[in-house]
Amino acid sequence: MTKEELIKNIQRKQSFLCVGLDTDIKKIPGHLLKEEDPIFAFNKAIIDATAPYCIAYKPNLAFYEAFGVKGIMAFEKTVRYLQQNYPDQFIIADAKRGDIGNTSAMYARTFFDEYNLDAVTVAPYMGEDSVKPFLTEGKEGTTHWVILLALTSNKGSHDFQLLRTRDTEGQGPDTEVMPLYERVLRKSQEWADDTRMMYVVGATQGKAFEAIRKIVPNHFLLVPGIGAQGGSLEEVCKYGMTKDCGLLVNSSRAIIYASAGEDFAEAAAREAKKVQLQMAKELEKIRN
Amino acid sequence: MTKEELIKNIQRKQSFLCVGLDTDIKKIPGHLLKEEDPIFAFNKAIIDATAPYCIAYKPNLAFYEAFGVKGIMAFEKTVRYLQQNYPDQFIIADAKRGDIGNTSAMYARTFFDEYNLDAVTVAPYMGEDSVKPFLTEGKEGTTHWVILLALTSNKGSHDFQLLRTRDTEGQGPDTEVMPLYERVLRKSQEWADDTRMMYVVGATQGKAFEAIRKIVPNHFLLVPGIGAQGGSLEEVCKYGMTKDCGLLVNSSRAIIYASAGEDFAEAAAREAKKVQLQMAKELEKIRN
Repeated sequence: MTKEELIKNIQRKQSFLCVGLDTDIKKIPGHLLKEEDPIFAFNKAIIDATAPYCIAYKPNLAFYEAFGVKGIMAFEKTVRYLQQNYPDQFIIADAKRGDIGNTSAMYARTFFDEYNLDAVTVAPYMGEDSVKPFLTEGKEGTTHWVILLALTSNKGSHDFQLLRTRDTEGQGPDTEVMPLYERVLRKSQEWADDTRMMYVVGATQGKAFEAIRKIVPNHFLLVPGIGAQGGSLEEVCKYGMTKDCGLLVNSSRAIIYASAGEDFAEAAAREAKKVQLQMAKELEKIRN
Repeated sequence: MTKEELIKNIQRKQSFLCVGLDTDIKKIPGHLLKEEDPIFAFNKAIIDATAPYCIAYKPNLAFYEAFGVKGIMAFEKTVRYLQQNYPDQFIIADAKRGDIGNTSAMYARTFFDEYNLDAVTVAPYMGEDSVKPFLTEGKEGTTHWVILLALTSNKGSHDFQLLRTRDTEGQGPDTEVMPLYERVLRKSQEWADDTRMMYVVGATQGKAFEAIRKIVPNHFLLVPGIGAQGGSLEEVCKYGMTKDCGLLVNSSRAIIYASAGEDFAEAAAREAKKVQLQMAKELEKIRN
């Protein structure tokens, strides 16, 4: 999906909500466990209920891999169901991959050639040749995105991402001191522009969005951390929204586990709609 | 597997070779393609041929995930085959995972509870709570390892891992300037000691091993990058070996694709034996 299509979907649906499909068999309602594929049955119901209120889905690979072959089958069925029934939904493989070139190329082929997903989350630690294959693989004529980790929503983001860095001696003219995550934002712009790359910035990072928007004024940001992790949508929009919106705000647990009963899908729809209505208000502010 | 057991295996087999199972269906000999599961057939033959010369295997998840459900089945069969027939081999899931706590916990359960592997490679970018679940999950009474990326073998390792860093203002007393990878080595020692944690250091990094051994004098290092990537075993041993060896040196492509013909397993054995003999010479130097 191109950036223009994504922006159109956001305007049309008055939503920039991404629903995270972190489907844990231990948390899904008991009555689904008698289904042949409980994970897919859960996802299908969640998707049908929430699709009117969101513009993206983000299956989290960890949750599918945890069930081995059955989990991967549920992942594949979920992706195919979305592509066949909701072709306007942007699908993100939340995988946090990143490895030496030939290995990253294998991952990229899996997510882009095999599953034809729109985007995959990538960890920056191994640098350019670990990220580039995700930019070059993929079917001709389709647009695939890298969503690079910049400043994540978790406590551990303080361990390395906020370290003050200087460029390596002799490696370049830029010797300005800046946090590691800013270095990631700057360096990675040499690899792709805002039509192929987004960044992960946690909703819990508050005012850091201001600094980030100075470096990446036009990029979409994938923002996890509202809901269960405690970030505020209002604050994210205040400091992070661009004239094109520029945000995909993810909520996983607060939506998909809104109820543990037989009404789980209705409850998920209710929560998703609540977020969508807040988002419509935020979008109102950038109209005209 | 405990550190003591690993050291005993190294001494007994006079080898610290890890064979990387980066099995690519496009590269395996043509006659195997008529097998029901060509990837597993290839791995089984490679394992039977190379097991006398190595003490560890490292399947690279990217290569299995690329074939969806069939790939995961081949991965599971490979792991089970190793565990049943070669219980003294140390098995590493080369996965480069790392995510927020509840997601890392899912990955950890997959690799440790589900597959009962010895170790998984983890990316440090997201910090402590992304790594810790890999240290706490796992079956009671078994020892599982985190192998954390420190200084990798690829060109992109220069982009961020070598950046000079200072501690975040006000985050701690340590304001010494050091490269990011050293920061990763130091910080992560607060999370686990050398009986549970190893580090990835690329064979192509040469003299950096000297600096690294000052920070982690007793940890095992997983060293990729000899063979196809061009690192030198002799140099790695000169600067990186400890009195207990302290090295797992990986070779993937140079061994498993030593021949593309029907003699692929014999050729792999020949290459593995060649490396093992070099390793025996290096081990000679630390005897007594």
